[in-house]
Amino acid sequence: MNKKYVDIDTLKFLLYDVHSLEDLLINERFIDHDKESLNMFLDSVKDFSDRELFPYLSEMDKIPAYYKEGTVIVHQQVDTYMKKGGEMGLISAPFDYEDGGLQIPFMVHTASTYIQDAANNHLPGYGGLTQGAAELIVNFANKTLNQTYVPKMLTGQWGGTMCLTEPQAGSSLSDISTKAFQTDQDFYKISGQKIFISAGDHQYAENIIHLVLARIEGAPKGTKGISLFVVPKNRINSDGTLIQNDVITVADFQKMGQRGYCTTHLGFGDNDDCHGWLVGEENQGLKYMFLLMNAARIGVGRGAAAIAMAAYQASLQYANERPQGRKLTSTGKKNHDEAQCLIIEHPDVRRMLLLQKSIAEGSLSLVLLASKYEDLLGTTTDKTLKIKYKLILEILTPIAKTYPSEAGLKSVDNGLQVLGGYGFCSDFILQQYYRDIRIFTLYEGTTGIQSQDLLGRKIPMENGKALEFIALEIKDTINAAYNFDELKPYAAKLGTKLELTQEVLDFLMPFAKKGNYERYLADANLFMEFFSLIIMSWLWLDIAVKSKQKLQSKNLPFSDEFYKNKIHTMKFYFKYELTKTNSLAQSLMDKEVLTIHNTDKNIFV
Amino acid sequence: MNKKYVDIDTLKFLLYDVHSLEDLLINERFIDHDKESLNMFLDSVKDFSDRELFPYLSEMDKIPAYYKEGTVIVHQQVDTYMKKGGEMGLISAPFDYEDGGLQIPFMVHTASTYIQDAANNHLPGYGGLTQGAAELIVNFANKTLNQTYVPKMLTGQWGGTMCLTEPQAGSSLSDISTKAFQTDQDFYKISGQKIFISAGDHQYAENIIHLVLARIEGAPKGTKGISLFVVPKNRINSDGTLIQNDVITVADFQKMGQRGYCTTHLGFGDNDDCHGWLVGEENQGLKYMFLLMNAARIGVGRGAAAIAMAAYQASLQYANERPQGRKLTSTGKKNHDEAQCLIIEHPDVRRMLLLQKSIAEGSLSLVLLASKYEDLLGTTTDKTLKIKYKLILEILTPIAKTYPSEAGLKSVDNGLQVLGGYGFCSDFILQQYYRDIRIFTLYEGTTGIQSQDLLGRKIPMENGKALEFIALEIKDTINAAYNFDELKPYAAKLGTKLELTQEVLDFLMPFAKKGNYERYLADANLFMEFFSLIIMSWLWLDIAVKSKQKLQSKNLPFSDEFYKNKIHTMKFYFKYELTKTNSLAQSLMDKEVLTIHNTDKNIFV
Repeated sequence: MNKKYVDIDTLKFLLYDVHSLEDLLINERFIDHDKESLNMFLDSVKDFSDRELFPYLSEMDKIPAYYKEGTVIVHQQVDTYMKKGGEMGLISAPFDYEDGGLQIPFMVHTASTYIQDAANNHLPGYGGLTQGAAELIVNFANKTLNQTYVPKMLTGQWGGTMCLTEPQAGSSLSDISTKAFQTDQDFYKISGQKIFISAGDHQYAENIIHLVLARIEGAPKGTKGISLFVVPKNRINSDGTLIQNDVITVADFQKMGQRGYCTTHLGFGDNDDCHGWLVGEENQGLKYMFLLMNAARIGVGRGAAAIAMAAYQASLQYANERPQGRKLTSTGKKNHDEAQCLIIEHPDVRRMLLLQKSIAEGSLSLVLLASKYEDLLGTTTDKTLKIKYKLILEILTPIAKTYPSEAGLKSVDNGLQVLGGYGFCSDFILQQYYRDIRIFTLYEGTTGIQSQDLLGRKIPMENGKALEFIALEIKDTINAAYNFDELKPYAAKLGTKLELTQEVLDFLMPFAKKGNYERYLADANLFMEFFSLIIMSWLWLDIAVKSKQKLQSKNLPFSDEFYKNKIHTMKFYFKYELTKTNSLAQSLMDKEVLTIHNTDKNIFV
Repeated sequence: MNKKYVDIDTLKFLLYDVHSLEDLLINERFIDHDKESLNMFLDSVKDFSDRELFPYLSEMDKIPAYYKEGTVIVHQQVDTYMKKGGEMGLISAPFDYEDGGLQIPFMVHTASTYIQDAANNHLPGYGGLTQGAAELIVNFANKTLNQTYVPKMLTGQWGGTMCLTEPQAGSSLSDISTKAFQTDQDFYKISGQKIFISAGDHQYAENIIHLVLARIEGAPKGTKGISLFVVPKNRINSDGTLIQNDVITVADFQKMGQRGYCTTHLGFGDNDDCHGWLVGEENQGLKYMFLLMNAARIGVGRGAAAIAMAAYQASLQYANERPQGRKLTSTGKKNHDEAQCLIIEHPDVRRMLLLQKSIAEGSLSLVLLASKYEDLLGTTTDKTLKIKYKLILEILTPIAKTYPSEAGLKSVDNGLQVLGGYGFCSDFILQQYYRDIRIFTLYEGTTGIQSQDLLGRKIPMENGKALEFIALEIKDTINAAYNFDELKPYAAKLGTKLELTQEVLDFLMPFAKKGNYERYLADANLFMEFFSLIIMSWLWLDIAVKSKQKLQSKNLPFSDEFYKNKIHTMKFYFKYELTKTNSLAQSLMDKEVLTIHNTDKNIFV
């Protein structure tokens, strides 16, 4: 087993030096926190993860969650995690004091959960879903519902879920068919099936509070007729005891990865006795859900970034310990009188490790930045800034969800390859990371859906204003980079990519303007990849700038090497990854149309 | 479960129309075969695979091979496969009549095993390793060894393996330390450990014949001191009975995929009683092994191509059956009064399916072509042609091993994505293909090793003669494509890629000439990807040319649509894949050096 699963130094460097967490702390909401107290919190999370999460990672894969007699049997560490983690404030941390929270910045919450994800990605979801469900109640439900459910959720005593997906609808939420019937009391009767419900049930949960999307009888078709309900597994009797609420666990999906994190199929109201309480107003359910969707999607990116980091640490350790082969001499032959070298000395192994490092650390930087915009948006009172933060958050979110998931997978794939045949063997953890991370491109809207969101909604939003704002941020970094001779060529290169982006959009936009949305969006996935590479290169250039600045100052928290290696990794990313934008732009601007359905032709015969 | 796992029409089109299998049959060696008889053979293989292989694919994953009391317990279908498959000639087919074979072309053997791989990739390896071991004996060992072992191997009664890898050496074969001590009899005593031995032991094997690389006491260091031995699990007593030969099964590696195909750790001579018989001459072991390595590596590519095809068929079936979402209208909105469309109508799903199709079918074309050169090389008597065939085979082999493995993985990854969340679930086969195919970039020399072979050995070989030969073949196809207006732009595009290849090599070669091999080879993996894309585009253009020719003729075996769709897929490959060569060339010609080890710096701190 690898010894290290996360790089706390890099995490703190990104938090404080790159993304200036301390600037947030002057805000009233965070006034009780300072760098020291937040670091103590993060250190305690690391300590907790060392003891209660990381040691169970492999075991939770080998003994997966399973369905048994109406419930799901999970590893007992789920119970420990919810109870002890709840006690530590891992679930409640970002909530307001009045709701039982610690009012920590979302950025710090992201950092905290990132450490946990890196330690054992099968556990934090149990807390994360509970938190998301509680947040919906806090934000949109009435006081009674809040007081009834939230306190026990934030301590980890009760779990929570989000119930969106149905068997016949998948990602197409407008086709949700779960029904809600009004009664003459304060509740509705709920009836329907939900699938892929993470953390949907387990033997340790005294209660699980489901946040369920359903259609009130007579509601409009499509997304406009969807309401949100609180549907507890067990409802509360007038005497305060719990009774079953006709929520049935039908099955637990067996999966290739994240096998300790259960994925359930739930049935509501089979016996016409499932009570649900409306959250907020009728037909506003999807709006509520989507107001919290940015945070949920950033959370997916965070999980993938964390697995990519853990895999990088495991590959790095192996490469540093494994002797094999010899370096090439100037004759092109090897000298067999020499001892074998360590595989980390082979250029190709170094290439794979640098790819892992650049994706893992870059992805972390991205999810921290997106989290920072959540904080800025949530705390600023300046109207103009609010619009700016909102738009930047909107355009960053699909990328923060997708890039760590897609590139993270590639990075773990390379990490497995570093180990050679051992990487494929169950005794080594790489194969598990490889399986675990595969779900992230599917969670919370697949890559296809995120890409349509980016190109179809976020780019055209407010006449391209979001893109303008982000381009200004990128230009700021480019200008800062021009202060350092070493960084100038990279600053220049990134500048040309902004122009290339405009060129691609100038090619694509006319299709949308002519109403040919299918053509406009046909290659949205390629645009996602293209634009992500530019965003990531921006973040790497920013890291390089901050590293240069640090190297100029005194009393550095980390070694000179640490900062120099960040600059080296930026160069790697520009050479091996950013270059891909040229080919992608070429494909995007290719006039040939090959993927649009034509009823006259079956191209798959 | 998916219903279809292979596309026999495409297989036959590639065999006969694209790669002109019939031209081979005029050769003396194949004189007894004609198209009809070979098709009957392939149809019987398909029938056998339908009955005995495909139905057990999922089961062999769920009940993996495991170690128990000194042996490995495998699924009983392994026994059926070896016995019935052996009876059918699946193992013996490509051998000479005098050795018990059918003298079928290697191309047809590739096609036959491809069908089996596509049906159930956990089984054909048991036959394939037996075949490889028998081939080494037939080619290089004396008559006695041949008569003692080969007949029972070719009928599947006895298994066979190749024992190369050792724990301390991995891919570095020059560091093999298994020892052979001469005795005063006809055998040596063998002592050592071998790992990752596929099909190394199982409860149904009456005997397993290991072909073991070992170092005779006093032999030179490095690759020049390695000899090859026949080491049976059970040796033959003077009375013809079998007794144990001190070959111990130490363990069975548990793996992420191909779980029904056992991977063993073997110990030789723990009790100083392991007899091994020298194959051919002393210290020639690696040479013998590598004379058969081309076929073995093509075999790996074939297996990956087959899994990619099976995954494509499964994704295609799902996409054709699953309704979800709606097509975009000209307002950019969806019409919820319409019924949901099938997901195959969404451009992004079509893009993923076309990617799968282009990789799966293209990879098949590649392994068939490489196999054809094996046949041409093995049968031609013309000295000049022999040199040409040999060089083309040498340059194609690392690509035929690597491209299907690397791109196949990407294609299965996209195939899993087509299914959304279901793709990740154990009830659907995609997640198994995704796990199974992951080993292929590691088998028989990792992608890193294949890439060094391509750029380090094959490209410079005979002053670049191999590359020249293949470039001439590519130009022939380009010229043929110029006969068809529709194909002209693609022919032109491919032509520019030959120039780009030369440009890249002009940049790299000086490093080798100056003795800086480490720099020359540092980005060999990128060159592999770059050159593979060009080779694959050539093969697709060739398919398009042959399709055009077919469409012009009458009495087509397949529908017009079939041929038109091949041309469509070629266009897809050129638009979405071949374009990547531009970015790759840019990275390859970047002067910055970022991955070469420098003892003064630790870039991973």
